Amino acid sequence: MIGQLDSSGRLRHLLTLDGLPPTVLSRLLDRAQQLHEDAQGGTALRHVLAGKAVCTLFFEPSTRTRSSFHLAAVRLGADVLNFDASASSTTKGETAIDTFKTIEAMGVTGFVIRHQADGAVAALAEVANAGTTVINAGDGRKAHPTQGLLDMLTLRQAKGNAFEKLKVLIVGDVRHSRVARSDLHALHALGATDIRVCGPRTLLPDDDILEGCSVGQDFDAALQGVDVVMMLRLQRERMQEGLIHSIDDYHRDYGLTVERLRRAAPDAVVLHPGPMNRGVEIDDEVADGPQSLIRLQVANGVAIRMAVLEELLA
Amino acid sequence: MIGQLDSSGRLRHLLTLDGLPPTVLSRLLDRAQQLHEDAQGGTALRHVLAGKAVCTLFFEPSTRTRSSFHLAAVRLGADVLNFDASASSTTKGETAIDTFKTIEAMGVTGFVIRHQADGAVAALAEVANAGTTVINAGDGRKAHPTQGLLDMLTLRQAKGNAFEKLKVLIVGDVRHSRVARSDLHALHALGATDIRVCGPRTLLPDDDILEGCSVGQDFDAALQGVDVVMMLRLQRERMQEGLIHSIDDYHRDYGLTVERLRRAAPDAVVLHPGPMNRGVEIDDEVADGPQSLIRLQVANGVAIRMAVLEELLA
Amino acid sequence: MIGQLDSSGRLRHLLTLDGLPPTVLSRLLDRAQQLHEDAQGGTALRHVLAGKAVCTLFFEPSTRTRSSFHLAAVRLGADVLNFDASASSTTKGETAIDTFKTIEAMGVTGFVIRHQADGAVAALAEVANAGTTVINAGDGRKAHPTQGLLDMLTLRQAKGNAFEKLKVLIVGDVRHSRVARSDLHALHALGATDIRVCGPRTLLPDDDILEGCSVGQDFDAALQGVDVVMMLRLQRERMQEGLIHSIDDYHRDYGLTVERLRRAAPDAVVLHPGPMNRGVEIDDEVADGPQSLIRLQVANGVAIRMAVLEELLA
Repeated sequence: MIGQLDSSGRLRHLLTLDGLPPTVLSRLLDRAQQLHEDAQGGTALRHVLAGKAVCTLFFEPSTRTRSSFHLAAVRLGADVLNFDASASSTTKGETAIDTFKTIEAMGVTGFVIRHQADGAVAALAEVANAGTTVINAGDGRKAHPTQGLLDMLTLRQAKGNAFEKLKVLIVGDVRHSRVARSDLHALHALGATDIRVCGPRTLLPDDDILEGCSVGQDFDAALQGVDVVMMLRLQRERMQEGLIHSIDDYHRDYGLTVERLRRAAPDAVVLHPGPMNRGVEIDDEVADGPQSLIRLQVANGVAIRMAVLEELLA
Repeated sequence: MIGQLDSSGRLRHLLTLDGLPPTVLSRLLDRAQQLHEDAQGGTALRHVLAGKAVCTLFFEPSTRTRSSFHLAAVRLGADVLNFDASASSTTKGETAIDTFKTIEAMGVTGFVIRHQADGAVAALAEVANAGTTVINAGDGRKAHPTQGLLDMLTLRQAKGNAFEKLKVLIVGDVRHSRVARSDLHALHALGATDIRVCGPRTLLPDDDILEGCSVGQDFDAALQGVDVVMMLRLQRERMQEGLIHSIDDYHRDYGLTVERLRRAAPDAVVLHPGPMNRGVEIDDEVADGPQSLIRLQVANGVAIRMAVLEELLA
Repeated sequence: MIGQLDSSGRLRHLLTLDGLPPTVLSRLLDRAQQLHEDAQGGTALRHVLAGKAVCTLFFEPSTRTRSSFHLAAVRLGADVLNFDASASSTTKGETAIDTFKTIEAMGVTGFVIRHQADGAVAALAEVANAGTTVINAGDGRKAHPTQGLLDMLTLRQAKGNAFEKLKVLIVGDVRHSRVARSDLHALHALGATDIRVCGPRTLLPDDDILEGCSVGQDFDAALQGVDVVMMLRLQRERMQEGLIHSIDDYHRDYGLTVERLRRAAPDAVVLHPGPMNRGVEIDDEVADGPQSLIRLQVANGVAIRMAVLEELLA
């Protein structure tokens, strides 16, 4: 249905973790783990994508994600073209497809694309030439597959491979979160069974993404005994939209404090995709505390993106 | 008069195709053709500009043209500095010359410059040091020489070398178009004799650029039997300026539809410099149809820019 | 106190010239001189930082300084990530420290940081990992150490090593100038004793930076017999802030004209950190005249930044 696999089952694009064969998922995690471990060297991988051009094509700005892909591609020896489509011809009325096909015609074969609309990245992959590969760097609220992968790599490093034994809690604005969706796809694929989702009713999704999860509004109850707390960023727009009362209320009900974290398992770990709103969804003491894996997530992000670029382009 | 040739007739800058010796023009096309053909390799040309610094200095933003030059320079092994002068010290009151001379003092020897004012790029070339070369990436309405070259390369690939036998039609806002001017310079230099120009009276130029062309307002009549249709982009500002009545009127009179294209020769080809206003100057069926060479133009753009950079900097 | 030296006295960060050991300062100048002399080659230094990632992290935009560091890093073979923090997550409420630590987690070990607040760069250096080095590219009004170094390199080239014999005049908005502060630190360290500072009372600083300088408001008097005139840029905001009456008044009292320059020594040299306000603090005839070293400063800027990057990262 999504067309990220070719007719022989090989990965051609990375658009979503939804339905990604577990063998591919595991291979990407294994390779990223290895890349993460020999990250110190650096120069030895320049041949992998030497002479290949990779474009980060962002219709919605994101300096962090773009920087992570940029560093990953450069370490593999690719030429990287940063194309800020929010500040270019698209604003002159050019369609996203024309922008994409134009850069493709320049000889770029790897695309890292972010777009604000659900499904827009898959639509571009559909019109790609045979030799072109598309990596979804986040589209709408649908998918952010490399974030899902880097979160799984981080959990594997902290908790091992036995995802079926993990109690995982995802907290916050799940409704608007592509990160949550990709995490849920990956957790299901890796065999997690105790998945809890928690947030204000207005920020919980209607769609079938929550199948197999236990869902609630009570953060304290949901935290009981969990091994993993995955916090989501709260967009301040949600207040203007009337979806939350106030930042203070949100922090009181859904902010992760040191006290609250004590309800989780003693060795529970905390993840956050960044950028953080300190004092809103997460307190300083947690973000910078011993249970936080937030910096490790960022480091793993580069390794995952290297693994994905290598898998698809090398 | 323009000083792009040195005293021994060698090309020192590329400012315009006006008066460019046909031998130089042909050499650039031949070299670009060769680069286009072995574009798959990629790495083998890194030595050509290794250790040289090229700056894309854009006083007027253009992500497409800059990306094309960027990829061309990188494939030849140059270090590329993207300098967005519309967002820099120039806005702090620095003159364009000071910005240029400052970057030159940093050791940059190749400049790719776009500027909104006629003649501004030539003025910068005039103050360049002996070892510095300037490539015009579009100035005012005067010249866009690499676009002219890539259009000629595209026509040669489609129609062969016999430009004297070609019937060529240029359509649209010729008055404000540097693309049209550079195309006209190149077509004349390569020996084309049946050159037709068509557009609303308000968008036709006063200057001597139209010498040797047949000029008219009737698109349907002008299309009769032509081998090449070169469409120009319509800037939507022209409506606010009162130069056209409405987008709908413009499309009715000057939009290239499938029906209209049937008036041209059966094997006529269609060019457009991009970005396209689909449904305004060109319909989807034409832009994406079998007679369209629009993506090929983009691919040739990189090859032409590699040839120009090599000629001037290697 | 500032923590740019490690416990064994080695330079770990470059945050300020204030208190920098004269041996380190001289070593950087010597190395930059050598790099400046063999700048023609270019490729031979690619191994120095091969495989290292350098991020230019600018919380306040500055295309010139960033370009200079970019070219310096690229010539040494580093991968360079340009991170415009004024247009990124920081505007989404992320703290500067989180932005910094995030990019550090991506594997970047060299940071070139500009920030509008005094001391912000040192604060980031304090939270850096053991293997990370921070270079101050200008913070608040406190320090711009590479500008101070490049000015000293320029003076050495023009006037030799005997700083104790030089009569140096710094003119303009010293109050708000990090350039002036870094120049003063360096001049004192190199043994200059006749340092004069001149500007309108409202633009002279209160702090102890002027210790050991002769200070006045009369430009003509201060110019008598000086060997070096260091002009500062006048920010036009100073008029809105009521710190100067008008641009015309400022030019009359503190603009460097050819006539005025005759009061200095016959072989006096003129420096300006750029970008220049021609016709305000400096006239064309001076800026482009035989006594101006302004372009040489820019060229030396790249050499100094290469020397600093090599010293700290190689």
